[in-house]
Amino acid sequence: MNSVSEHKFSERFTFEELTEESTPRRIVESAIEEIGVNGLSGVTTKGISQRANLSTGIIHHYFDTKDNVVYAAYVYLIHDLHQSALAVFRQESDSRERLLAMIRMNFTSLHISPEARDVWPQFWAHAAHDERVGRLLRVYYNRFHSNLAHALKQLLGDQYKARQVASLLLSSIQGMWFTHRFTSYPEDMEDAVKLLEEHLDRLIRAYS
Amino acid sequence: MNSVSEHKFSERFTFEELTEESTPRRIVESAIEEIGVNGLSGVTTKGISQRANLSTGIIHHYFDTKDNVVYAAYVYLIHDLHQSALAVFRQESDSRERLLAMIRMNFTSLHISPEARDVWPQFWAHAAHDERVGRLLRVYYNRFHSNLAHALKQLLGDQYKARQVASLLLSSIQGMWFTHRFTSYPEDMEDAVKLLEEHLDRLIRAYS
Repeated sequence: MNSVSEHKFSERFTFEELTEESTPRRIVESAIEEIGVNGLSGVTTKGISQRANLSTGIIHHYFDTKDNVVYAAYVYLIHDLHQSALAVFRQESDSRERLLAMIRMNFTSLHISPEARDVWPQFWAHAAHDERVGRLLRVYYNRFHSNLAHALKQLLGDQYKARQVASLLLSSIQGMWFTHRFTSYPEDMEDAVKLLEEHLDRLIRAYS
Repeated sequence: MNSVSEHKFSERFTFEELTEESTPRRIVESAIEEIGVNGLSGVTTKGISQRANLSTGIIHHYFDTKDNVVYAAYVYLIHDLHQSALAVFRQESDSRERLLAMIRMNFTSLHISPEARDVWPQFWAHAAHDERVGRLLRVYYNRFHSNLAHALKQLLGDQYKARQVASLLLSSIQGMWFTHRFTSYPEDMEDAVKLLEEHLDRLIRAYS
């Protein structure tokens, strides 16, 4: 999480605290629920405090502003995906298996949960008009792209091709997640994953 | 626009008025700029009225609520894409050319303009927690999917395959638009379009 942790914004809170049972973590988990249910425009410190069963004073103590809590919520989601990616690299040594697992983790981990899945669209919307949030989103995609490219390099041999296919795969995963969430193409999540797996194999064949 | 026009919400405004020079249209165009610059959470009737150089009273007269203005802004974007699609079907008779034009229109029409491109992420975020907005987004994607499937049916012969490939193409267009907007994969818009064109040809070969 180095590049993310650097975005430190409060003397009384570090992103490390999100990884353990702590008051900041409890606040951030409540913020995720609030953002998911009410959207960015409906989130208030009061709403977060009620959900966390804490005073608004405690929230201000740790995060200073509501914007900082929301930002920490995005960091929390990104951290979760990053942990999933690390686990994939630890558990799988085969490159194709690693790629399949990286596809799957977008449809199985925390961020497809009822609480968190609707935070992502708020994150994107926020990134469109807030520089700090936009930078965070790019950090996440850069890291995901580089993980995909690393595994693809083993399969395709060539660095340039690996980065090209990583871009194609990244946009397909994003698009499939989106159309599954907001439309019925495809309705079933298992179908979404299967289509991406077939897509991966087609790309590997086309670029080998 | 039938299925969209049915979502009428005010006695003093019809979606038809968006197609001609009118006060409602002026309000909606200002709303698009406001949403793009400030995000959904920063939009106010006052901000829209100042941008349109109209009183807030006039806005309330036509739209009743701010939510209705925002909704009309989404309809306006969708209407624009729908007009582009109709023009494609009028101007091109070759199915592959129609598909290429439908890919391109996502990267050239109004909604990639500086004013409008950042309204889309707000639209998605809004759709995640507002039923009316979610329905509108689905209407749009259903129509786009059916336009793609129609052209693909001519090329692939088979209705089922055409719908499958339409889903894949839809998610790829969405994903490519997204990663081009929010990351640097690909940095250049022309590259994004070229990658999608190659993707289309690969899909046609794979499913023929």
